[in-house]
Amino acid sequence: MTGTPAAFTAGDYEARMRRAAEAAADAGLDGVLVAPGPDLVWMTGYRPVETERLTLLVLRAGHDPVLVVPALEAPDAAKAAGAPALTLRDWTDGMDPIETAASLLGHEGGLGSRSGGGPGGRVEGRFGVSDNAWALHLLGLQQRLPDARYVALTEALPMLRAVKDAAELERLAAAGAAADATFEEIRKVPFAGRKETDVAADIADLLRQFGHSQVDFTIVASGPNAANPHHEAEDRVIERGDMVVLDFGGLKEGYGSDTSRTVHVGEPDDEERKVHDIVRAAQEAGFRAVRPGATCQDVDRAARAVITDAGYGEYFIHRTGHGIGVTTHEPPYMIEGEEQPLVPGMCFSVEPGVYLPGRFGVRIEDIVTVTEDGGRRLNTTSREMVIVD
Amino acid sequence: MTGTPAAFTAGDYEARMRRAAEAAADAGLDGVLVAPGPDLVWMTGYRPVETERLTLLVLRAGHDPVLVVPALEAPDAAKAAGAPALTLRDWTDGMDPIETAASLLGHEGGLGSRSGGGPGGRVEGRFGVSDNAWALHLLGLQQRLPDARYVALTEALPMLRAVKDAAELERLAAAGAAADATFEEIRKVPFAGRKETDVAADIADLLRQFGHSQVDFTIVASGPNAANPHHEAEDRVIERGDMVVLDFGGLKEGYGSDTSRTVHVGEPDDEERKVHDIVRAAQEAGFRAVRPGATCQDVDRAARAVITDAGYGEYFIHRTGHGIGVTTHEPPYMIEGEEQPLVPGMCFSVEPGVYLPGRFGVRIEDIVTVTEDGGRRLNTTSREMVIVD
Repeated sequence: MTGTPAAFTAGDYEARMRRAAEAAADAGLDGVLVAPGPDLVWMTGYRPVETERLTLLVLRAGHDPVLVVPALEAPDAAKAAGAPALTLRDWTDGMDPIETAASLLGHEGGLGSRSGGGPGGRVEGRFGVSDNAWALHLLGLQQRLPDARYVALTEALPMLRAVKDAAELERLAAAGAAADATFEEIRKVPFAGRKETDVAADIADLLRQFGHSQVDFTIVASGPNAANPHHEAEDRVIERGDMVVLDFGGLKEGYGSDTSRTVHVGEPDDEERKVHDIVRAAQEAGFRAVRPGATCQDVDRAARAVITDAGYGEYFIHRTGHGIGVTTHEPPYMIEGEEQPLVPGMCFSVEPGVYLPGRFGVRIEDIVTVTEDGGRRLNTTSREMVIVD
Repeated sequence: MTGTPAAFTAGDYEARMRRAAEAAADAGLDGVLVAPGPDLVWMTGYRPVETERLTLLVLRAGHDPVLVVPALEAPDAAKAAGAPALTLRDWTDGMDPIETAASLLGHEGGLGSRSGGGPGGRVEGRFGVSDNAWALHLLGLQQRLPDARYVALTEALPMLRAVKDAAELERLAAAGAAADATFEEIRKVPFAGRKETDVAADIADLLRQFGHSQVDFTIVASGPNAANPHHEAEDRVIERGDMVVLDFGGLKEGYGSDTSRTVHVGEPDDEERKVHDIVRAAQEAGFRAVRPGATCQDVDRAARAVITDAGYGEYFIHRTGHGIGVTTHEPPYMIEGEEQPLVPGMCFSVEPGVYLPGRFGVRIEDIVTVTEDGGRRLNTTSREMVIVD
C-alpha cells in the first residue's frame, strides 16, 4: 500500500478541461455542457449535491471555462481544486439560470453577454451534454435555444474519460489493492450460519478500513441467490455447501474499485468445480485478449467463447465488462457490437459469469488496464476457488 | 416516538400511479415518464441505483403502468412493494431499451406493441418527464420520437407529490420528532474547542440513533462561517462567543426531516441577540401566514417583511422554504413569484435567515404542514436562542 497520492492541481483540471474542449471541437461540437456528477468531478474536482438548482460547466474551444453555480453554493465551488482554472458565474434565487447558461452558448455573445447570442439571438450550435444532466435543465435549454442541437456526451465523446493518465492509474491501482486486501480478510470470516447481509457489512467495514471513502456495492449472493447477477445481499442464512459470489467496490481517493470472487462454503461438488474452472478460464481468455488495437467486443468474444464452447453460453447473461475511473461503472463497455479499439491507459472490468437458475452462480472479476503490449490486472488475489468456513 | 408505521401496500402505490396518470391527463399530457429517484420511489417503492441502463416507468391514463427495467435488475424490481400494481418489461444488454420505451408511448401501438405507434409510427403526444431523468435517455427518446414533446414533470405537475396523505404525514412527523430529539441531545455536547466536523459527526450519529436510514446534510456553521447559508462543516475550531447555525436532516422510514436552530457558545452580545430575535419573529410570521388559500409567496413575503422592516433585508439572501416528502428538498418553493395556493397536507420548511458577511449568521427552520385552518409545526424544539458550552 502506498500513501496518499498527491492531490490533483488546478493545472491538472485545466488540462482536462482543455482536452475536453478540444476533443469536442474535433468531434464537431460547439461546446460541452457538464452537469454535477462524474464529468464535473473529473474536470474540476467539484462535487456538489445534485438538486434542481442549476450547476453547469460550459466548455467551448477558444473560451475560458465558465461554471454557472447557485450563489449559495459559490463559496463551496470556489474551494474546488479546479476552481482557479475557471470563471464562476453565480445566480441567485429568483433569477433564471437557464438564461445565464444560454448566454454562454451564443456564437457572438460570448462570455460577457447575457443576450443568448448575437443581435439575432439565434444559436444553432451542437452541444454535448453530460449523460446524467437533468431532463429539467436540458428541456429548459432546448426551450430557450430551440435551434441548437444536443447530444449525450458518451455518444459524442464516449472515450473522453476512458484513457487514464499515470496519476489516475496510481489511484485505481491503490483502490484495487484495497479491494484485494478486503478479500484476503473476508475469506477468513465465518460464512456458514450467518446472513448474507452480515458478510456484506463486514465487507463494507473492511473497504472503509482499507481507505475507501465510499462503498458502492457489497454483493453477497449465496446458493440459489448467486444465480441472479445483480442480487445484492439479503436475510438468507448462508449454508454449508453454498457457492457464494462476492462482488464489491467503491471509491478510494476518488477512484473506483470493483472485484468479484466466488467462494465455496466447504468442499464443492464436481459440477460446481467444473463451472468455476470454466469461468476462470473465460476470465483468463478475456484478460489475454486485452491489448492495444483489439476492440472492446474482442474481450467479450474471447471470454464468451470459452463459456459457449463448454456448453454454458446461455447462462452467461450479461456483458463481459465496463469501464472504471471516477465512477465504478462507466464506458467503455466490453460487449458485442462495441468496436472501440483499446488504448493504453483504459481501465475496465473483465467479469464473465455463469448463472444456473435456482441452483448456483459463479463470477470472477478483475479490473484490467491496457498497457503498451497487453493488459495488467489491478486485482491480483487468487482466482482459484477459495474454500471458506 | 411511535413505532414503525405500516408499510405502504401495492394498493397505495397503485392509487398514486392512478392519481398521477389522471393528473397528467387533466394537464393535457399523454403520459408520464418516471425515472429512478423520488418520483419512482413515491409511485412504486422501487429505489434502483441510477445508471446508464434505462429504468423507466411509463404511465398513461387508461393503460396499465409499465416499468421498463434491465433484465439483471428485474428480480429486484419485482420485489418492490408497488410491483404487483405494474407490468415489468425487461430488456437485456444488447437490446435498445429506448425502442422498448418508445413503443409504450404509441397512440395506437399500446402496451403490446414494439412498433412505436400505429402503422405510421408517428407519436405526437406530450409527455411529462421526471426532472432528474438522464439527458442520455431523454435525448434517446427525442431522437426516436421526434414529433413528441416533452416537459419537465415539476413544470407540468408541480404539485403531484406535494399534498401528503395521513400515512405520509405520520412519517414526516416521526422524522421531525427524530430531528428534534437530535437537537435536544446535541445542545448538551461541548462546542467550544471542538471542530465543526466533530459536532457534525455527532449530529449524524444521533440522527441514525433516532431512526434515520440516511443523513442528507449536517451543517455546523460557526462564527463567520455561519454567514454562508450553505456552509457545511469544516475544520474550524468553534470558539467561545461564536454563533453556530445547525441545520440537519435526512430520511427516516423513507420520509424527510430538516430543521435549523442557531445556538450561541456562551453569552451572546446585544447585536447577536437582536438579530436572533428578528429571525425568530420572521419565522413566526412565516408560520402564521400558512393557511389554505394563501400562496407560497405569501409565506416568503410575511417572513421577509419582518427582516426588511428591521433593516436587515439585504442580508436575507435565499428563499424562505422548500417542500419535503420522500426527499428533503422538493416543490413547492416559498419564494416571491410562486403563486401556488397552499392546500391542506402540503409540507415545507419555513426557514428565514440573516447572514452578515465575515461576522455571523442566524437561521431558524421548522417543517410546517398546512392544516384545514392554518399550519402545524413538525419541529417543536425551542426557537429561543439556546446557549451551549
